[in-house]
Amino acid sequence: MRISELSERSGVSPASIKYYIREGLLPGGERTGYNSTEYDESHVGRLRLIRALIDTGGLTVAAARKVIGAIDDPGISLDHVLGIAQQAMPESAEPPSDIALDRVRAVMRERGWSTVAENPGITLAATALDDFAATGRTDLTALLSRYAAAIDLIAEADLDFVAARGGDRDQAAETVVVGIALGDVLLAGLRRIAQESLTHRRYRGGVVPSDRKEPS
Amino acid sequence: MRISELSERSGVSPASIKYYIREGLLPGGERTGYNSTEYDESHVGRLRLIRALIDTGGLTVAAARKVIGAIDDPGISLDHVLGIAQQAMPESAEPPSDIALDRVRAVMRERGWSTVAENPGITLAATALDDFAATGRTDLTALLSRYAAAIDLIAEADLDFVAARGGDRDQAAETVVVGIALGDVLLAGLRRIAQESLTHRRYRGGVVPSDRKEPS
Repeated sequence: MRISELSERSGVSPASIKYYIREGLLPGGERTGYNSTEYDESHVGRLRLIRALIDTGGLTVAAARKVIGAIDDPGISLDHVLGIAQQAMPESAEPPSDIALDRVRAVMRERGWSTVAENPGITLAATALDDFAATGRTDLTALLSRYAAAIDLIAEADLDFVAARGGDRDQAAETVVVGIALGDVLLAGLRRIAQESLTHRRYRGGVVPSDRKEPS
Repeated sequence: MRISELSERSGVSPASIKYYIREGLLPGGERTGYNSTEYDESHVGRLRLIRALIDTGGLTVAAARKVIGAIDDPGISLDHVLGIAQQAMPESAEPPSDIALDRVRAVMRERGWSTVAENPGITLAATALDDFAATGRTDLTALLSRYAAAIDLIAEADLDFVAARGGDRDQAAETVVVGIALGDVLLAGLRRIAQESLTHRRYRGGVVPSDRKEPS
């Protein structure tokens, strides 16, 4: 297909397609004449992956290139792809406190979780605990335990999802990468729904308000 | 305290403090002389809340002002503060497909969740499903059900956290707001830890690799 059709199918503008090719995120098309280049289904799939990583996952172009490089390198095992993709996700610049790191390690022991020391989730979770503490909320032990128990179920579901899809290593690697970025967003969405529903059930006897007062 | 001490205590620069006052996110200090203004503990707490919302939660200054306005307005009930804070969180600009919305509504029925039609979590979750589908992953029914079951536990923990802290309405309202933004980050961190740990357990017989190969 021509670049115009590729653009239409993928929802990515021709200028962005050319930019992703220059930046090494997307393989170039096949030159079929003086002024024409052909693209195929693999380009459509790759562009959708790039968009998911950058638009929804919030990755920079450089981070997306690193993740895609890992997917494309058959010498990198699946769990290394997972590690590379986790490292690439956007995170806070500020290092967390030792108190927060100790709390995260305590909940890891409680759940029997073991990871390499640099797992970026440790920093991410500890940073969130520091932010809670900075706003005066330090009594987080119960919340953290219950979050971790629920997250065990979620991570099991994530792994089963990758395993159930089958396919070759490349497809599995792509599913791992897509799942990290999009899973966070899906979970955040479901959490907002459940929070509202449970709040109504608990404080309003199950009645859903028909409107909301806006702040003046 | 002077603005220099307020800046040190809160980790926010004097220029940013003045900006937040101009923008209506932070009440001004008390003028105690021709060239001196006094701030108190309430300013420290408020600045930490502002930082948590903007830095970790990713809110714009305008969105943070709206949320803080809701906290400060005693006429707005707790579940309305929740709704306003949810609406303020950053989200995708693109409207989701009807197929994805139907899937989210199906899982809501499955869990007995009811919300107002505009709950932003519905859009957020449906957008993530569209992104999964765009990368060729449409067999999401099992994953979605398991995510939703785990999220029920998380939302229960969220509500218990607000209830257990007690305090007056203003404190509870602030906890609700802080919890939405920071809880997402905390959960994303824990999920990365659990994913790595469970991957090792499943694919490597529990051995944690001592290093990771980087893509060349």
